[in-house]
Amino acid sequence: MLSVNHLSVSEVSSILAATARIEAISAAERAKLLAGRRVALLFYESSTRTRTSFELAAKSLGATTTLVSDKSSSIEKGESLKDTGLTLRALGAEAIILRHNYSGAPDLLARMTGLPVLNAGDGMHEHPSQALLDLRTMLIRLGLDATSASETCLKGVTVVITGDIRHSRVARSNAMLLPRLGARVILCGPKPLLPEDALGLHPAIEIERDFDRALSQASVAMMLRIQKERLAGLSLDLGVYIDGYQLTEARLAAHAPNALVMHPGPMIRGLEIQSEVADGPNSAIEEQVSHGLAIRTALLVRALGVKA
Amino acid sequence: MLSVNHLSVSEVSSILAATARIEAISAAERAKLLAGRRVALLFYESSTRTRTSFELAAKSLGATTTLVSDKSSSIEKGESLKDTGLTLRALGAEAIILRHNYSGAPDLLARMTGLPVLNAGDGMHEHPSQALLDLRTMLIRLGLDATSASETCLKGVTVVITGDIRHSRVARSNAMLLPRLGARVILCGPKPLLPEDALGLHPAIEIERDFDRALSQASVAMMLRIQKERLAGLSLDLGVYIDGYQLTEARLAAHAPNALVMHPGPMIRGLEIQSEVADGPNSAIEEQVSHGLAIRTALLVRALGVKA
Amino acid sequence: MLSVNHLSVSEVSSILAATARIEAISAAERAKLLAGRRVALLFYESSTRTRTSFELAAKSLGATTTLVSDKSSSIEKGESLKDTGLTLRALGAEAIILRHNYSGAPDLLARMTGLPVLNAGDGMHEHPSQALLDLRTMLIRLGLDATSASETCLKGVTVVITGDIRHSRVARSNAMLLPRLGARVILCGPKPLLPEDALGLHPAIEIERDFDRALSQASVAMMLRIQKERLAGLSLDLGVYIDGYQLTEARLAAHAPNALVMHPGPMIRGLEIQSEVADGPNSAIEEQVSHGLAIRTALLVRALGVKA
Repeated sequence: MLSVNHLSVSEVSSILAATARIEAISAAERAKLLAGRRVALLFYESSTRTRTSFELAAKSLGATTTLVSDKSSSIEKGESLKDTGLTLRALGAEAIILRHNYSGAPDLLARMTGLPVLNAGDGMHEHPSQALLDLRTMLIRLGLDATSASETCLKGVTVVITGDIRHSRVARSNAMLLPRLGARVILCGPKPLLPEDALGLHPAIEIERDFDRALSQASVAMMLRIQKERLAGLSLDLGVYIDGYQLTEARLAAHAPNALVMHPGPMIRGLEIQSEVADGPNSAIEEQVSHGLAIRTALLVRALGVKA
Repeated sequence: MLSVNHLSVSEVSSILAATARIEAISAAERAKLLAGRRVALLFYESSTRTRTSFELAAKSLGATTTLVSDKSSSIEKGESLKDTGLTLRALGAEAIILRHNYSGAPDLLARMTGLPVLNAGDGMHEHPSQALLDLRTMLIRLGLDATSASETCLKGVTVVITGDIRHSRVARSNAMLLPRLGARVILCGPKPLLPEDALGLHPAIEIERDFDRALSQASVAMMLRIQKERLAGLSLDLGVYIDGYQLTEARLAAHAPNALVMHPGPMIRGLEIQSEVADGPNSAIEEQVSHGLAIRTALLVRALGVKA
Repeated sequence: MLSVNHLSVSEVSSILAATARIEAISAAERAKLLAGRRVALLFYESSTRTRTSFELAAKSLGATTTLVSDKSSSIEKGESLKDTGLTLRALGAEAIILRHNYSGAPDLLARMTGLPVLNAGDGMHEHPSQALLDLRTMLIRLGLDATSASETCLKGVTVVITGDIRHSRVARSNAMLLPRLGARVILCGPKPLLPEDALGLHPAIEIERDFDRALSQASVAMMLRIQKERLAGLSLDLGVYIDGYQLTEARLAAHAPNALVMHPGPMIRGLEIQSEVADGPNSAIEEQVSHGLAIRTALLVRALGVKA
């Protein structure tokens, strides 16, 4: 699980199916799936939801977890990723969940340790479990079958991803996965945050710089976090950005009253999204978190070669 | 469990009773009470004893815990308390134990998530589980019934709370709870650390600025931690403070030879309290920690609606 | 377990035997050994492998662990080691695993709490569990009996310890333990990193400043981590150090083609050791980590007075 591009559509389908199966069994049965197995969480960047989600997923399956973060470890002493990985392997870890600030670190770690590595976000590159949980959220909320996937399962669905596409691994992973399942993907944002070369992520991707025009086509409006510091660094005015790209109640009512609203979090209310929208009936933001937990149980079971 | 003022005397009584019952059962029985339940610890301020105490209490009841601290989480990225709470709920947390630097944060979190929130200290406001464990410690050490409470159960008991009352949530929670159970509460300290308006905490509270005179009336001498930086900020001389308010062996022998000595920790030996007193026969400081663990099992069981 | 000098040879022998026994039983049986027992990890310095190793060892034995680190605790508020220890004891900890930056802190903590304290590294003083895991690694890789120890069990074995001996608690603990088991120990390094008084660690210890001459006698080449800052502080040139003391493939082939290569980690590839050597057939570096986990199960079982 290093990149969504490593997953065939049939693998995506079987992950969705396993997620549904694991969710259906009792907590006691679930706790047997990985009983006695060891999973290491290796986090070089801070994280609440992804770390907690993987940790709780592993614990719910009965696995023993250990967390190594850059805040309290030999990472500070300059130990290489390779040696940290080999150490975790020698300590009995059978899978490593890695968040790293360098793109490609998970591939490296997997090659160097021979262990299954679950990419929990690498630099500005990928965040594959996020794309899968977003997929599950869409399928369920759009009333589609969430226990399988195919090359046409998102046919007729238009997903508008808006915000800081340039720096977002969530956007990248979604933009690479969703078109392969038949979705139309429109990226939206001002040039500094959405360079033309984003079109290279998939041949079917489109760019629409006008947010209202993009929204009016959306079945799903996926908003991304905006970091003030980045806007400043790109000489983008915050007020201008909010005027042009904030998802407001008025905008939603006018252009996409039935669209599903998603956000990978952490979100900054009042910046990329109005608080009323985040808490409104269109929002699936909390469900995304719950589906993240579910998807990650399936990913862990798959990584450790267990039949679920 | 947001404030001691939310607890009626009969609720305090039933928490004491539940604490005693849980303590009486076997470890194996105890581990069934919250088996399979999920408890999140959300700490915006560092803490040893309160965090560890709640964590071990939850684990001893069989619950799965997850810790989110400001050191390694999205909190750093500016996510709001509300969204962190909603995320934890979506991850399956059934109760949140919160320490936060803003007074009132626990109420806010409880309202926003609909989950039971256990206040593990909010700003300079309250620390209700501390007041309850202090109560249990007093009842047991004073030879009173520790399995129930009433409006007169502390009748005849005088508790002298000395030190930095102004900044202490421990002092506030105790000063609000103990008089309701019949105790006389005397606050003691120099003006900058003990403003007159502290009398507003409860009509029965008294202020006595002379430590020796206060001590001579004490059944319980509860000492509070003094932070050097704060004294400096208030232009209070450290030497003068120690001369006037340090609990020394000599002072204890002269004015309150039978008084129970308490301290919520962390304590600074040689500042607010002499080391010999902290380790002496009057001290109940370690017992406070143990009773904290016990009280918190009862609070968790209560929060999750389990009959114990 | 405060110092290797507190362990008689027969105690070392029984720890090795217990390690082997615990390794031989099933995971389910192992998880009963310390079921329901509480172990606290108290870390005043950051650590990956030692902390994780003790934590996983304790969990594999069924114990509940709690971690208190200097990053998120009252340690920051100036609480004394004594009071932190008493708090952990009052919270039900039955053993404390301590890493501390002051030499001698574990002895102090053990005296003050009356609890078994496992020294996980104290200042530049000792790291006894590391010496024991190094011993087990040597015995197994040299084809000797790893289930017992005697005053002659390492007879004929020459261990060359090279690098920053001055600041290394690993070197100290090994240099005090191995000669008592019959090993010849040669310390190697430039004067600033290896003062003459290191000879005082044990009467049988030798110093050889020429790395090639030392290597040519080695059954085991134990390399220590070099911290660049320290070299700079001692006016030692990094290039000169590497030329003289880096363990390279060429050097190993020329002088000690059959020697076992060890390193306690974290290692800096390209500084004290060439990457090819660390990953080569002579290396036992990963096995050291695994044996660390095994040895620590035996130490925990012993500390808690359980028969394994």
